[in-house]
Amino acid sequence: MSFPDKVRIVEVGPRDGLQNEAKPLPALMKIKLIDDLAAAGLREIEAGAFVSPKWVPQMADSAAVLAGITRRANVRYPVLVPNLQGFEAALAAGAREISVFAAASESFSQKNTNCSIAESLARFQPVLEKAGSLGIPVRGYVSCVLGCPYEGEIAPDQVAAVASELISLGCNEISLGDTIGVGTPKAARRLIETVSRRVPLNQLAAHFHDTYGQALANLYAVLEMGVGIVDASVAGLGGCPYAPGASGNVATEDVVYMLGGLGIETGIDLQRLAEAGWCAMDHIGRAPSGSVSRVMRQKRPV
Amino acid sequence: MSFPDKVRIVEVGPRDGLQNEAKPLPALMKIKLIDDLAAAGLREIEAGAFVSPKWVPQMADSAAVLAGITRRANVRYPVLVPNLQGFEAALAAGAREISVFAAASESFSQKNTNCSIAESLARFQPVLEKAGSLGIPVRGYVSCVLGCPYEGEIAPDQVAAVASELISLGCNEISLGDTIGVGTPKAARRLIETVSRRVPLNQLAAHFHDTYGQALANLYAVLEMGVGIVDASVAGLGGCPYAPGASGNVATEDVVYMLGGLGIETGIDLQRLAEAGWCAMDHIGRAPSGSVSRVMRQKRPV
Repeated sequence: MSFPDKVRIVEVGPRDGLQNEAKPLPALMKIKLIDDLAAAGLREIEAGAFVSPKWVPQMADSAAVLAGITRRANVRYPVLVPNLQGFEAALAAGAREISVFAAASESFSQKNTNCSIAESLARFQPVLEKAGSLGIPVRGYVSCVLGCPYEGEIAPDQVAAVASELISLGCNEISLGDTIGVGTPKAARRLIETVSRRVPLNQLAAHFHDTYGQALANLYAVLEMGVGIVDASVAGLGGCPYAPGASGNVATEDVVYMLGGLGIETGIDLQRLAEAGWCAMDHIGRAPSGSVSRVMRQKRPV
Repeated sequence: MSFPDKVRIVEVGPRDGLQNEAKPLPALMKIKLIDDLAAAGLREIEAGAFVSPKWVPQMADSAAVLAGITRRANVRYPVLVPNLQGFEAALAAGAREISVFAAASESFSQKNTNCSIAESLARFQPVLEKAGSLGIPVRGYVSCVLGCPYEGEIAPDQVAAVASELISLGCNEISLGDTIGVGTPKAARRLIETVSRRVPLNQLAAHFHDTYGQALANLYAVLEMGVGIVDASVAGLGGCPYAPGASGNVATEDVVYMLGGLGIETGIDLQRLAEAGWCAMDHIGRAPSGSVSRVMRQKRPV
């Protein structure tokens, strides 16, 4: 067992989270959320996506959001781009880091992005070439790494193949997403074992969903293996599109609480983080889905 | 790491859970719940408590419940007793296994049971003597093992002292309760390390609350150490008396799901277990607090 001394938390609430909320958050509220998160100590905050507003209307105002936030020198604000056109738009809006989104499941890739895995990778190639020439870091998401809503189990080797392909194309980091939250700690360990044979461990992020309540146990299991990058969503923003009402992304507050107990440094102020989430959830009109946030809210002075 | 091949789940919903529900479940519904749980494969179901109805009105009908359930030969139905008088009442009602409840925190003992830890242990002595002479197994609960609502942190040595005292008095098993759910995996491991120096590991049960979302991660951490008895509450029955609205006991469904993924045998039918919980929660009038139960319910055929 070799826990990392330090964990880098990638806050995905303002993009991955909000794009799955039925009630959109207006640009001004998104800007406040992102600035609040930076003030709470988050150092990497996914700030938006430059995708077709026809497919993801929740992200239509990403340029306004990027223009409105108060950029801090020590904070990174990556945005998701689906193709070269999106990348150009992101650059024009001032993005300095991007991410691309692939799947480890052929059926999910077809249904989610309307192309095969190979086609999606081919589409990323010019993006990654241009990003490379501009010195812009690119994060590669791989979804369905522990299960697919259409195919069920996904072989870790299949995940490793997609992850290593993204790395060869020029991604500097791979986020392994348990999109439907079905994984358990043994499967999570097997995944990291397999993928880390082809992509160095320090380039792997754990992106776990809490749909079945397993996210923290899975995170603990891969932290033990030395994984040092964790994706999380403030207040559990996002829910689960495949099971409405269920939890989606693991809540950042729950992760920060656990890491605190493990003595792993994150630099995040849990109280300010929770408050940032409450403000967004009050607008959205539902309770935070993370346990720590909920209990802190119950206990806050009236 | 040495995971147990098999885990014994102690279902505490009908007692520990229901006694913390604001809306009581009538005896007939408790009987149905217990019988449903046995039909789902639970082999140890806490069936009630013989305590003063003045203090715990939710358990006033425990004799009727014991009389009403359809006892299965391979299922154990322990009940909680606070003293010799309660034990006599439990015996008269047909109980064949009992449990006693102590605290690792002096303040919690005073506020919860109105006596010191030493006084509570003295009160258990005649109970354990009589149980010994009748060949009745006694489970000892130790609460506040990872933190106390009044004292904050609790030293693992203090927990070990109370646990080993209960064993010397004649308890055959100790359930270590993180009553307020504040523990994280590192603290849970330290606890088991310390207590298992004085009480054999195979006599220790993990009784973790999910108030801060940490229960499954904590369970995973102690399962790795070989702990083979886990307390859980169907549908997360019980909530948290110290933070109304927050989660309490870890949901049995979440535990069964994780153990299934770890390849650890429990013999429990997850679908029937979830259905048993839904029926109780429909009556109580709130959603199950476990993630697995919630997502299964969202996904069930309409």
